[in-house]
Amino acid sequence: MAAGKPKRPGEFALIERYFRPLATDPGAFGLVDDAALYAPPRGEELVLTVDTIAAGVHFFADDPPAAIARKALRVNLSDLAAKGATPAAYLMSLALPDGWTEAWVRAFTKGLADDQRRFGISLLGGDTTRASGGLTLTITAIGCVPKGKMVHRAGAKAGDVVFVSGTVGDAALGLGVRLGTVAAPKAAAAYLRDRYLNPQPRTKLAPLIRRFATSAMDVSDGLVGDLAHICKASGVGAEIEAASVPLSRQARAVIAGNERAFGTALTGGDDYEILATVTKSRAGRFAAAARSAGVPVTRIGRIVEGAGPPVVLGPDGRPMAFSGLGHTHF
Amino acid sequence: MAAGKPKRPGEFALIERYFRPLATDPGAFGLVDDAALYAPPRGEELVLTVDTIAAGVHFFADDPPAAIARKALRVNLSDLAAKGATPAAYLMSLALPDGWTEAWVRAFTKGLADDQRRFGISLLGGDTTRASGGLTLTITAIGCVPKGKMVHRAGAKAGDVVFVSGTVGDAALGLGVRLGTVAAPKAAAAYLRDRYLNPQPRTKLAPLIRRFATSAMDVSDGLVGDLAHICKASGVGAEIEAASVPLSRQARAVIAGNERAFGTALTGGDDYEILATVTKSRAGRFAAAARSAGVPVTRIGRIVEGAGPPVVLGPDGRPMAFSGLGHTHF
Repeated sequence: MAAGKPKRPGEFALIERYFRPLATDPGAFGLVDDAALYAPPRGEELVLTVDTIAAGVHFFADDPPAAIARKALRVNLSDLAAKGATPAAYLMSLALPDGWTEAWVRAFTKGLADDQRRFGISLLGGDTTRASGGLTLTITAIGCVPKGKMVHRAGAKAGDVVFVSGTVGDAALGLGVRLGTVAAPKAAAAYLRDRYLNPQPRTKLAPLIRRFATSAMDVSDGLVGDLAHICKASGVGAEIEAASVPLSRQARAVIAGNERAFGTALTGGDDYEILATVTKSRAGRFAAAARSAGVPVTRIGRIVEGAGPPVVLGPDGRPMAFSGLGHTHF
Repeated sequence: MAAGKPKRPGEFALIERYFRPLATDPGAFGLVDDAALYAPPRGEELVLTVDTIAAGVHFFADDPPAAIARKALRVNLSDLAAKGATPAAYLMSLALPDGWTEAWVRAFTKGLADDQRRFGISLLGGDTTRASGGLTLTITAIGCVPKGKMVHRAGAKAGDVVFVSGTVGDAALGLGVRLGTVAAPKAAAAYLRDRYLNPQPRTKLAPLIRRFATSAMDVSDGLVGDLAHICKASGVGAEIEAASVPLSRQARAVIAGNERAFGTALTGGDDYEILATVTKSRAGRFAAAARSAGVPVTRIGRIVEGAGPPVVLGPDGRPMAFSGLGHTHF
């Protein structure tokens, strides 16, 4: 060990001390084997998704370790929820930068443990290695759906109602606050920053997405851009009423002083809300069921004929223009 | 786009042009959805493994892109083979460093395409993002085994014969050659470097591992250290005869001029051969079946009672000492 390096556990000690307690599924074999075993319940299929988050790209290197853990897990759980899948397990690959500390790993795995309890999942397997640069964290999440019931981006039809869960734009504005590019009143700033740091995946909505949605996806790269994906996959267009887009009180406070912030809210990333289309005749029942499940959803527009990107109609009924459709982490 | 940046496709163009052609499984939905769908064949379970390789840690940043692709895939296929699993599909997360080029991605995906054909797998889903430093590549591989037939590290019993496939130490010596710490005749040097660059996962051995092995794992962190994992998981010890360890002609050429290189061969990493234990009465049949399958396996020792790390017996019948049991990428 080179002089000056902090005293730290080796790879195996790290696994035994911090990761093994997370691996409660019998198919994880306590992380002492080379691979994990998984079989979906009878009549179910697996929904698989992978997302990497990297320091300086998706989070700040000095973010609290538990928040980084939560974000890595939740961006994947958000994908599963939008596909109508129930979270089951995950595999994690953790690339640690030079200078990592045991205290960091302890706080990080505490964040994972809390979310495992919250979302009913566990660590199935993983890999720990040195990073080529900053911390890089890849999670492959596994969810289950009854056979044939995964919800797709394709499936929206003209006449369908477009819904979005929660409020839109908080995280993008929170990132702006953090970067100093967006001004916000103090209390609003704290709320928006937290929305960027701590995404809330809409796992409770998954069964209703499965039951009601003709198409769905999670909003991770901006509402308008993500709806454009649904339009493209479904071969349709969409009209969104700007006035209907649900905004938090805090986002409204920012936008009141800065009109361009509305564009940021609609095209910025990291919302991790669910965008779904539902046939007109079932829209009311979907909204009521979502309310009962404790997840607010809002009608923001409709699917129209003719393939093309969504049109956002301003208060004057005319299309609004944005500088870009969406955000990219690329 | 900042001045001086090469003209490059965006994330979606990259996916459409280079990654979608790899996604031939219907459950991949041509990579236009947010998640993939997978169901194991009836009566089978999934074996899941994840491995990250990072520039400067597991490969050199200027290695040929196709070789980096192959390595990422094959280190995972090697894990599956050692568990007796048939490769089915994989998810890939690719974090690209600043300065990546389209030509690099083209060559990289060509490497993946070749290996997909060779090993009968396809890309099920993925993520592309900016790297926080050098290129970082995570592959989650999915294999299938008949229910209850996955082979574990635990299961070795006193009296079992210890086998290893292929030859041991070539990659570790090849890395030494590349780093300039190991001297080798020119032709041997090229062979050994290639063994480091291009691991050959023993996928053909998987059905025989399932049928014959009481325990197995792939040799990725050094023969002695990896056998120690089997011993620990199985609660046994092992004796290896140094003279029985299969070495390539090229490795022998290096060791002839450098006795310490034998230690490197036995404790260095990146072999991606399979280490397996087989009951004495079935050892002959296993060796014959492996030969028929085109994969040479060699008896290198035996499992003994009493938990503990393996003992390597030198030509004089006395235990040899090494400076470390294994290699770590951590």
